[in-house]
Amino acid sequence: MIFEEAQKEEEFVDQRQRAAVWQPEQAVSIEGEGRTPRKRRAILAAATEVFLQHGYMGASMDEVAAKAGVSKQTVYKQFENKERLFAEIVLGTSDQLLDGLVQAYAETLDEATDAREALRALARRFLDSLTTGSVLQLRRLVIAEADRFPEVCGSWFTSGFERSLVALGEALTRMTERGLLRELSDPTLAAYQFAGLVMYKPMNRAMFAGTAAGPVPGELDKLADQATEVFLAAYGLEGSAS
Amino acid sequence: MIFEEAQKEEEFVDQRQRAAVWQPEQAVSIEGEGRTPRKRRAILAAATEVFLQHGYMGASMDEVAAKAGVSKQTVYKQFENKERLFAEIVLGTSDQLLDGLVQAYAETLDEATDAREALRALARRFLDSLTTGSVLQLRRLVIAEADRFPEVCGSWFTSGFERSLVALGEALTRMTERGLLRELSDPTLAAYQFAGLVMYKPMNRAMFAGTAAGPVPGELDKLADQATEVFLAAYGLEGSAS
Repeated sequence: MIFEEAQKEEEFVDQRQRAAVWQPEQAVSIEGEGRTPRKRRAILAAATEVFLQHGYMGASMDEVAAKAGVSKQTVYKQFENKERLFAEIVLGTSDQLLDGLVQAYAETLDEATDAREALRALARRFLDSLTTGSVLQLRRLVIAEADRFPEVCGSWFTSGFERSLVALGEALTRMTERGLLRELSDPTLAAYQFAGLVMYKPMNRAMFAGTAAGPVPGELDKLADQATEVFLAAYGLEGSAS
Repeated sequence: MIFEEAQKEEEFVDQRQRAAVWQPEQAVSIEGEGRTPRKRRAILAAATEVFLQHGYMGASMDEVAAKAGVSKQTVYKQFENKERLFAEIVLGTSDQLLDGLVQAYAETLDEATDAREALRALARRFLDSLTTGSVLQLRRLVIAEADRFPEVCGSWFTSGFERSLVALGEALTRMTERGLLRELSDPTLAAYQFAGLVMYKPMNRAMFAGTAAGPVPGELDKLADQATEVFLAAYGLEGSAS
């Protein structure tokens, strides 16, 4: 019994890692094999880890340098200052998050023939991929610093978060065109509504109560199923779901 | 035209201030008129302002003391350390937020005879009261520090945020009993779904893009109306909304 529980938990964690739309290693995306790119990559990887763990104010450039195996002077030479390093890391993640989500829409919605099954699969994908520790830490970092760096964080929102919802609205519109959903008067708003139905409960808990307060295995199916039913009651072709 | 716009904006801001479920001044709720309570009150008021503005790491005890008009020693004598002061402020707000929201449910839902009108009014109340600058700053502060202080922030979530959604579920159940909504198999989840439908879009923008990126006047009615339609399609008695 205990073994089964542990195995279930392990499979759960394993599955969520596979489903992740973003991993901290991805934050580093510099081409080339020269010595400078290698150093920059090492610094960005180290800084991502330090910022995610300690936040902006708590991050120390000494720790970044030590983790990257370079001198502090090298860090400053490559990235000017802490703010610049923060901007590079945060902005570097928005495209990656967007790509991961667009791929999720393609895999769950674009080939679907059954709206309920497709939306449930996407809801599970949201829950599995957006509540991993590193995505939650990234989200927490951006929120914490949004008033100190409204331009960087606003740009992260616009080019990552917001665009991912616009893309979801487009995927929902394609479902309408394939006869799977009703006409959507505002596809982006419908996308936000779907995401809100799925994520509002587990995301607020993880944000307010801490990254360790992620969703529990048994809860995910229910969240996904119930969100899908409400969405289909409004936008499905059956008229109303029970 | 410009004057009208400005007047409209002013009315909008004014209305949102009236609707606020929480104001920073409320964080201070010590009874009595002795010298020590008066000092504690001044320190808590000053600390609330400093923490909301600069976050935990950026808050300076010197600034708190100066704003409160007391010595730094007095601050430490009354509150031991920065962490303790943070805990007092954060935990002090959760009851107040809960009370404000429970009152909003009573005023919008409990006397209602029309489900659509009642839910629209509550949605507007959510949008007006939860996206004011000080509520957004408080939310940002708790999220930023949740991994550093999971006990304090977890307790804020459980005794404030989560309880306000349980209370909304109870108010929705009373609407079911009065023949205004269908039977709800999980009233708290239905409450989260309603809040998610209303708040997911404006709250994420304000959290990620900064407190200044609050909702725009013209957007609020649409957000409230569309959220209500989706919720009623699933839980209303009409079967389905258009």
